[in-house]
Amino acid sequence: MDQSHLLSFETLLSLHAVQVEQLLTELLSARTREGEVVRPERLLSAMRHGALNGGKRLRPFLVLETARLFDADGGAVLRVAAALECIHCYSLIHDDLPAMDDDDLRRGQPTVHRAFDEATAILAGDSLLTLAFDIIASEETELGAQAKVALISALARAAGVGGMAGGQALDLAAEKVRPDEGGIVQLQAMKTGALIRFACLAGALIGNATTAERESLTAFGEAIGLAFQLADDLLDVTATAEDLGKATGKDAAAGKGTLVALHGEEWARNQLRGLVAHAEELLAPFGEAAAVLKETARFIAFRNH
Amino acid sequence: MDQSHLLSFETLLSLHAVQVEQLLTELLSARTREGEVVRPERLLSAMRHGALNGGKRLRPFLVLETARLFDADGGAVLRVAAALECIHCYSLIHDDLPAMDDDDLRRGQPTVHRAFDEATAILAGDSLLTLAFDIIASEETELGAQAKVALISALARAAGVGGMAGGQALDLAAEKVRPDEGGIVQLQAMKTGALIRFACLAGALIGNATTAERESLTAFGEAIGLAFQLADDLLDVTATAEDLGKATGKDAAAGKGTLVALHGEEWARNQLRGLVAHAEELLAPFGEAAAVLKETARFIAFRNH
Repeated sequence: MDQSHLLSFETLLSLHAVQVEQLLTELLSARTREGEVVRPERLLSAMRHGALNGGKRLRPFLVLETARLFDADGGAVLRVAAALECIHCYSLIHDDLPAMDDDDLRRGQPTVHRAFDEATAILAGDSLLTLAFDIIASEETELGAQAKVALISALARAAGVGGMAGGQALDLAAEKVRPDEGGIVQLQAMKTGALIRFACLAGALIGNATTAERESLTAFGEAIGLAFQLADDLLDVTATAEDLGKATGKDAAAGKGTLVALHGEEWARNQLRGLVAHAEELLAPFGEAAAVLKETARFIAFRNH
Repeated sequence: MDQSHLLSFETLLSLHAVQVEQLLTELLSARTREGEVVRPERLLSAMRHGALNGGKRLRPFLVLETARLFDADGGAVLRVAAALECIHCYSLIHDDLPAMDDDDLRRGQPTVHRAFDEATAILAGDSLLTLAFDIIASEETELGAQAKVALISALARAAGVGGMAGGQALDLAAEKVRPDEGGIVQLQAMKTGALIRFACLAGALIGNATTAERESLTAFGEAIGLAFQLADDLLDVTATAEDLGKATGKDAAAGKGTLVALHGEEWARNQLRGLVAHAEELLAPFGEAAAVLKETARFIAFRNH
């Protein structure tokens, strides 16, 4: 059933988020899996604090909705979505550390190293990162071995030195030497773009998409990844801390170059309109089935929180 | 060719280490793989600093030698061995951080956070951890998809919250509340035992071993894992910093309970002899082909560095 005609987008997003959180809660229970000795309670609590914190679950949503284009749903898709969210949450825990962005609050709550301690936050991030690959490879994930290997390979590259982690390294370097426009685009494609791109590719890999379909969805992921970052940079300038549940104006304070700082808000809003139009074009081959994904692109570009 | 009759054990270990390091050097080159944007040079340098530092490469050696029991060798086995070493090196980088063990030296060289900075060390560890799964899943690793999934699943569980990372969390907690004997055994089975166990299991998974063979090798891995930790605790008491290239007497200084502290050096040496005998028994079904692995057990138990 296509739920998009029955529910508002934000309601649909919340319903998916509840499903993802239920699964994450189960995956972060004390129950050990074969090959594990014991799951230390304090470390597990820190992992839960970092993963069950009321995020929008946008990346899992993209996995679920792109997989749905190929009539793939059910437990395996949800597990891949949860694995991706583990990677996203690990990155937030580590990015918040004193040695990195040094943030005390995340979504209005103390960050993991503030609620626990630095060592536990580092290990909680490490463990969520590791768990992501465990979840996909697990026998409980009912996918063929080839699909699992393709997903793990793509996810590792999106998250690693040539993707998200590399992007965070470039972001730290950008506080010292401001990158040029090409450098900013590259940094953002890695730091935030790579996981969003993977989220859209994942649905295609799960759904045994054709090469053309996979390429369309990857390009769609890249377009909405750019839109996500541009909207984020715009919100950093225009929104209040209350809207976002975190400090604003941090980019400017850190002397970080953003495209919004380079070209202005009006330019950014025009770019966002262009990116959304491009994203919608890329979905044209999927017809009416892609209605929710089109709405997702608009949500990402024009959200105010 | 069975090299064990031609070369001393330490020479054989070094020859394997050279192979692993050559592959790690290639894997840590700036060349991007499909799905990567760019590999930032400073982050790559930190990863190399942490991974190409002259370790004994004992875990990769165990992968290579257990796989050899099943006539499995060549590039794929070496890649799995290198992936495991990436996990080991990531754990050392993070364990050395100021928030954890706060070590300035590792094998006589500055630790990654001293040679670079804390943020870069955190990201270098994250990236090596992620790279491990990338390496196994990669198309360049010529193994069947099912073997890859089995390896990734076992490796993730050995490294994660119920394995090595969980063990490090228990180790940090042990500085505050000294665990009892059962607690120490559990902590060590996780912190150092899990990866050594995986190293021996990996050869069986690559080599399509029977269930009985896989169980023997897993039990062998557990026995030498115990021996490794016991020998380490003994060296912490008896060796000099010069022998080890790192500070000694740290366990006692940190108030950490070890089995050597509980039962004494004589007991520990007896235990080591018993563990080696048990490890050799477990290898009996493999006959003469397991000669090198038997020697490995003796090396691990009776090494002086």
